[in-house]
Amino acid sequence: MQNHFFKKKNNIKINDVLTILNLKNEKLNFKLNDIKELDSASKNDITFFHSIKYLEIIKNTKSKVVITNNKFVNFIPKKIKIIKVSNVLVSVAKITSLFYPDALNDSFDIEVEPVSEKKFLGLKLGKNVLLGKNTKIGKNCSIGHNSIIERNVKIGNNCNIGSNVIIKNTIIGNNTNVLDGAIIGKKGFGFFPDKIKNFRYPHIGSVLIGNNVEIGCNNTIDRGSLSNTIIGDGTFLDNQVHIAHNVKIGKNCIITGQVGFAGSSTIGNRVMIGGQAGISGHLSIGDNVQIGGGSGVIKNIPSNTKVMGYPARNIRNFLKLNKLND
Amino acid sequence: MQNHFFKKKNNIKINDVLTILNLKNEKLNFKLNDIKELDSASKNDITFFHSIKYLEIIKNTKSKVVITNNKFVNFIPKKIKIIKVSNVLVSVAKITSLFYPDALNDSFDIEVEPVSEKKFLGLKLGKNVLLGKNTKIGKNCSIGHNSIIERNVKIGNNCNIGSNVIIKNTIIGNNTNVLDGAIIGKKGFGFFPDKIKNFRYPHIGSVLIGNNVEIGCNNTIDRGSLSNTIIGDGTFLDNQVHIAHNVKIGKNCIITGQVGFAGSSTIGNRVMIGGQAGISGHLSIGDNVQIGGGSGVIKNIPSNTKVMGYPARNIRNFLKLNKLND
Amino acid sequence: MQNHFFKKKNNIKINDVLTILNLKNEKLNFKLNDIKELDSASKNDITFFHSIKYLEIIKNTKSKVVITNNKFVNFIPKKIKIIKVSNVLVSVAKITSLFYPDALNDSFDIEVEPVSEKKFLGLKLGKNVLLGKNTKIGKNCSIGHNSIIERNVKIGNNCNIGSNVIIKNTIIGNNTNVLDGAIIGKKGFGFFPDKIKNFRYPHIGSVLIGNNVEIGCNNTIDRGSLSNTIIGDGTFLDNQVHIAHNVKIGKNCIITGQVGFAGSSTIGNRVMIGGQAGISGHLSIGDNVQIGGGSGVIKNIPSNTKVMGYPARNIRNFLKLNKLND
Repeated sequence: MQNHFFKKKNNIKINDVLTILNLKNEKLNFKLNDIKELDSASKNDITFFHSIKYLEIIKNTKSKVVITNNKFVNFIPKKIKIIKVSNVLVSVAKITSLFYPDALNDSFDIEVEPVSEKKFLGLKLGKNVLLGKNTKIGKNCSIGHNSIIERNVKIGNNCNIGSNVIIKNTIIGNNTNVLDGAIIGKKGFGFFPDKIKNFRYPHIGSVLIGNNVEIGCNNTIDRGSLSNTIIGDGTFLDNQVHIAHNVKIGKNCIITGQVGFAGSSTIGNRVMIGGQAGISGHLSIGDNVQIGGGSGVIKNIPSNTKVMGYPARNIRNFLKLNKLND
Repeated sequence: MQNHFFKKKNNIKINDVLTILNLKNEKLNFKLNDIKELDSASKNDITFFHSIKYLEIIKNTKSKVVITNNKFVNFIPKKIKIIKVSNVLVSVAKITSLFYPDALNDSFDIEVEPVSEKKFLGLKLGKNVLLGKNTKIGKNCSIGHNSIIERNVKIGNNCNIGSNVIIKNTIIGNNTNVLDGAIIGKKGFGFFPDKIKNFRYPHIGSVLIGNNVEIGCNNTIDRGSLSNTIIGDGTFLDNQVHIAHNVKIGKNCIITGQVGFAGSSTIGNRVMIGGQAGISGHLSIGDNVQIGGGSGVIKNIPSNTKVMGYPARNIRNFLKLNKLND
Repeated sequence: MQNHFFKKKNNIKINDVLTILNLKNEKLNFKLNDIKELDSASKNDITFFHSIKYLEIIKNTKSKVVITNNKFVNFIPKKIKIIKVSNVLVSVAKITSLFYPDALNDSFDIEVEPVSEKKFLGLKLGKNVLLGKNTKIGKNCSIGHNSIIERNVKIGNNCNIGSNVIIKNTIIGNNTNVLDGAIIGKKGFGFFPDKIKNFRYPHIGSVLIGNNVEIGCNNTIDRGSLSNTIIGDGTFLDNQVHIAHNVKIGKNCIITGQVGFAGSSTIGNRVMIGGQAGISGHLSIGDNVQIGGGSGVIKNIPSNTKVMGYPARNIRNFLKLNKLND
């Protein structure tokens, strides 16, 4: 699937990759299509392997070229060409910038313009609304005052966008509401720390929001780095929720006020999360999980479980440990 | 008292109620005035009983018709007519929509317009300010740039509203400041979960803010569902505070940064709450209570108590349990 | 150094100070230059002593006049004139207002105006941007839509300011990004509680932001009261971070989403703080400290330490106390 928001450079050859990584020029000349994660890479995409967690996935990748480091070379199937580097993720960032030279620029869309209400069928338009080029708005939508919808954003039918909202790099389904002050689609908080100047990595992912979703006031939802940030159908988010890059939330979830998600966690369907709870990064939360308000989740949670506490544990044990007689 | 923000339909008869609840038409024909909570209902208002917590209140309600379910029918005084339903709150939502057909629409006020500084006495007006119809602004107020005050909102004398503020369904006293980016008066996060499409319930309550109050930057304060959300005189809220629907905060409270309140809790006077603390829903916090920063309050707190921890407990016991030698 | 944002009244004599404090007129007539904290006061500045924590500092202050109370008079070096009051901080607030009569007014800058892109070299300007008088913007900056930069603010070269941003009383270095919806430089949440009307104290400090900094979406950063709020070079803040008045954050720190700082804490260099952690007021956090997500820090943390928990303790002890077998 083509990247909807960032223009990809074609004609990248594997030699170009070796050159920006300062590796010996091995006179390899085959053409690469894109950089992808292990599971979504096809045979002409370059991919990367940087954690033992992905051992099962590397066995089935279609990619023929993988970036990895010394520690992991022995896990790579024989048929795959290895490019060995010292820091896998820094190399991935450099290669991503090679394919998507615009993706490091996260500046505002300077080409937005006021539009006529008549441009889209049944549109109810607030004052001072700015829309970018090639924006698509479905039937019977409303967009509140001072809101900014940047280039290429797609919004489905019957959606209500509040006032003071900023949306970029995002695709929204039907019947979805985005409340006042929400900021959706900026790059994630991803970079490599450095004493002189932190090295930001490009975010070529989008935010994909389903049907019948509600995004609360002053929410911040960052777009993905290589994959997408996803909010499933029927999921409701309360005010002041923060969702970091690459988080994938399932369907019919209820996320209450001030909850925060660190990057790259996956949340199942029908998950309920109480106010101010926090979910650490790179976790997997099953279906029908209930997480008590104020909890701090630092490990995977299987489906159909109720947890609470900091760190979050089974709610029975939490209550046993925290008898309140005072 | 008449609802200031939502137009009530008159001539609702009890038969109309039975019809939308799909109950047998009992040929009852008396006229209902409104739907109210047990304690504020008068004799022509319909009310509801859904929790044993309200047992004392039902004994004194003036209402002559109550919605309840099988579990509670025996608690209803003999003189009150019972309408028995399977889900009390869903039925209440349907009846509220019958009385207030506009209250489900939470879209922005499309009729706001720029105003002249001269319209209100001593008004100091920022750029791009938008005011709704019938808005009342007292003497010597200021309203910052890009702020939106929607229809029927009342603001007292000597109030300062910052920039990028959005206020709807709200009545504000005198000498009160609302700082930049605050969003006040949208509907609460209240709905009935459903696999296909969550069922939102109407919010006919308002936000009532007293005199000498300060509302911090980027606060989100939701209006009430059936009752009002209230912030008492002299109460100060710091930045990024979230207040859910129906919360009632007393006078002279100090609520520091990033505190969150779940729905329907009542907070006394002179309560001090440290940063990032969370208060669960439907709790009662007494006067002069001090809640330590980061606490998670999950039970009622009597007056003149200091609590801390997650879950919050008496601060002496918290400190005993959490000796920090490391 | 002259105060960049608030005009100081000159010709304040010590008698004026005694008068507003309702103290006996001692016919003292020497001229005061300013009111300063103990360590930054020079010989013509008045200063104050209100906590035993500053015992070492008072020994070396250059000030010749100190405000204190009965409890502390014996700690003041002989050569320093003492003005004894019942409440030191209330008196400091009154004297600060005497020197800086405008500093209590935190209203929006009504003199901001749209500017031409050509006014500053290489400026990329969004729509509806408003700039105050005497604002300085360096080379090759961008300012997003609807953003407001108030009077006297200085921004260095190559900075990107997002959309819907509000900046006042702030000086920003080079290569720094401020993301959408951030609110920087309003007065802090500092006041003296009172039954009738809380007594706000003047905030004459600024926000000083270094080079290569990133300020996340919807951050709120308050200016200092007497000293400044400082964000050091290379420090990155994620979304929804709250920084109270007088906080000083060092260089190359990484502060993730929804972290909150209470007032007047000092954070070292290369400190990493996980999501939703909270740092209490008046603490000192050393260099290279790592604070786990969700932690509540309530005591000083020495350099090169990893802490976690609520209250935060050494991470080894936290993990020992919180074995998760469930």
